[in-house]
Amino acid sequence: MNEIELIALLTQSLPMNNTVVTGAGDDCAVLDLGLPGQWLLFKTDAVVAEVHFDAGARPEQIGHKAMGRCLSDIAAMAGSPVAALVTLGLPPHFDPCWVAAIYAGMKSLAQRYNVAIVGGETTTSPDRTFISISMIGTVDKSKCVLRSGARAGDAILVSGTLGGSWAGKHLEFAPRVNEARWLADHFAIHAMLDVSDGLASDLRHILNASGVGAELLARDIPISPAASQTAHGPLSAHAPLNAALTDGEDFELLFTLAGADTVRLLDAWHPQFPSLPLTCIGKITAEPGLKLRDRDQVREVTEQGYVHFA
Amino acid sequence: MNEIELIALLTQSLPMNNTVVTGAGDDCAVLDLGLPGQWLLFKTDAVVAEVHFDAGARPEQIGHKAMGRCLSDIAAMAGSPVAALVTLGLPPHFDPCWVAAIYAGMKSLAQRYNVAIVGGETTTSPDRTFISISMIGTVDKSKCVLRSGARAGDAILVSGTLGGSWAGKHLEFAPRVNEARWLADHFAIHAMLDVSDGLASDLRHILNASGVGAELLARDIPISPAASQTAHGPLSAHAPLNAALTDGEDFELLFTLAGADTVRLLDAWHPQFPSLPLTCIGKITAEPGLKLRDRDQVREVTEQGYVHFA
Repeated sequence: MNEIELIALLTQSLPMNNTVVTGAGDDCAVLDLGLPGQWLLFKTDAVVAEVHFDAGARPEQIGHKAMGRCLSDIAAMAGSPVAALVTLGLPPHFDPCWVAAIYAGMKSLAQRYNVAIVGGETTTSPDRTFISISMIGTVDKSKCVLRSGARAGDAILVSGTLGGSWAGKHLEFAPRVNEARWLADHFAIHAMLDVSDGLASDLRHILNASGVGAELLARDIPISPAASQTAHGPLSAHAPLNAALTDGEDFELLFTLAGADTVRLLDAWHPQFPSLPLTCIGKITAEPGLKLRDRDQVREVTEQGYVHFA
Repeated sequence: MNEIELIALLTQSLPMNNTVVTGAGDDCAVLDLGLPGQWLLFKTDAVVAEVHFDAGARPEQIGHKAMGRCLSDIAAMAGSPVAALVTLGLPPHFDPCWVAAIYAGMKSLAQRYNVAIVGGETTTSPDRTFISISMIGTVDKSKCVLRSGARAGDAILVSGTLGGSWAGKHLEFAPRVNEARWLADHFAIHAMLDVSDGLASDLRHILNASGVGAELLARDIPISPAASQTAHGPLSAHAPLNAALTDGEDFELLFTLAGADTVRLLDAWHPQFPSLPLTCIGKITAEPGLKLRDRDQVREVTEQGYVHFA
């Protein structure tokens, strides 16, 4: 049983109450607690040693990644992060300096986004370290972006470049909190998420939630330098593109908006975020399925991206 | 380095912002997000295989315990739980039925307290299962009970009986959500927490936070049948009392209120919660320290309760 099948099993008939706007299945849960004009966002995310980081990772980077993943999910809803709790599972003979450096990485990133760290827990994890972070944030009701709003005719856009994140970016990425808020403040964003499983998988999440399909333009997908460098030569001509489609852990914003808004958005984006590319990579179609158009043909995308427990 | 020293190190200079009413150090973090008349409670708590439950525990009990621990912390602030996220770390070859049964235990308890389960995450934990739950709740600003409000002359009370929880109660306890809310609705509770580390340790948390001391009455401490049964005979005459002082995982309410209110409370409690004992076990003193009075003497309590990583 892979992760997707397991989640489908476990999320059947979860208990609900009248605060729930959106439960399991989006980047964050969305709750209406009676905050004037705002919803609460609620998210949790864990990193595990040797799964999400290896022995080469500096402890500050581990802390950065753990905090950054939650921030990226708050960003995916166009929200503002508020506070975080940290659960640290540690083997019995941990090095206090190493743990303090993990915390330094978390604190530094939290501070940059005005997120309070309001507690948490340390617990024994006999075999390996894990860090689970939970985060709350807020979002204007009128600006919250779900995965389910994509419409036929929308343009599909992505920030930054994709693929090859394991070469280093996955430990140092900047969560796109400010960019997402700016987007929702100035444009009618229809659907959005952060790319964590890989472009192909994550775009499918939007398509499935919205009941639509998509056609991507192969030559327009922004391939990262790391993905370009890892594969070249006659036998792997498509490898960098596959890396961009499936590697995951990019933590970039993937979103859709009305095709007619695209040029105005691209014009406004560049002066606002001059060092971060924004690329239109295709369009939403009424016909279901995910297709990739290159020079010669249109083909179905079979790449699933990273499936945990596969 | 034990858990208390580690937490002291890590919680130095945590990032804060203007939403924080109470950060690390109480049962829950307390946040002011602008909810009319209410604060938000925010809590996370993890259970790890072979640390918090062993191979004899039924999966429904494991789920019950994981959810119940968070509910007990919301109760300790006199709050109302609202929503939970579940992080499940699973070994690669898990049994889906076992996992579904853990979820059944969580769902059942959540439903009983009208808590929505709004998502979470499954992740690979190669060596052993862990479950980390985060929960939010709300509390009337005027009724929120911290650890820091105990005053000299207060009576100290505890619900239920203490000690021997590992014989079974730790997997099946009822979180005292309704009892705590009733207490805060009808009485001026000065300080409260839930007994998780053991009466001696947890009472010290109240004493340290409040800058006071306490004197406990040995003969009045309600010892659980499980604690009474585990130790008897001439060489261990005090063992059941020690178990009640130090075993932990009781998940009972420990609180203080003005001594003058005690009789009125005890009179009102019994018809309200006829099957749950409530016992006055001592008093708060201006002089610091934790003392135990028995027939012959008053002695300093040295028992620390369970110290993780000790």
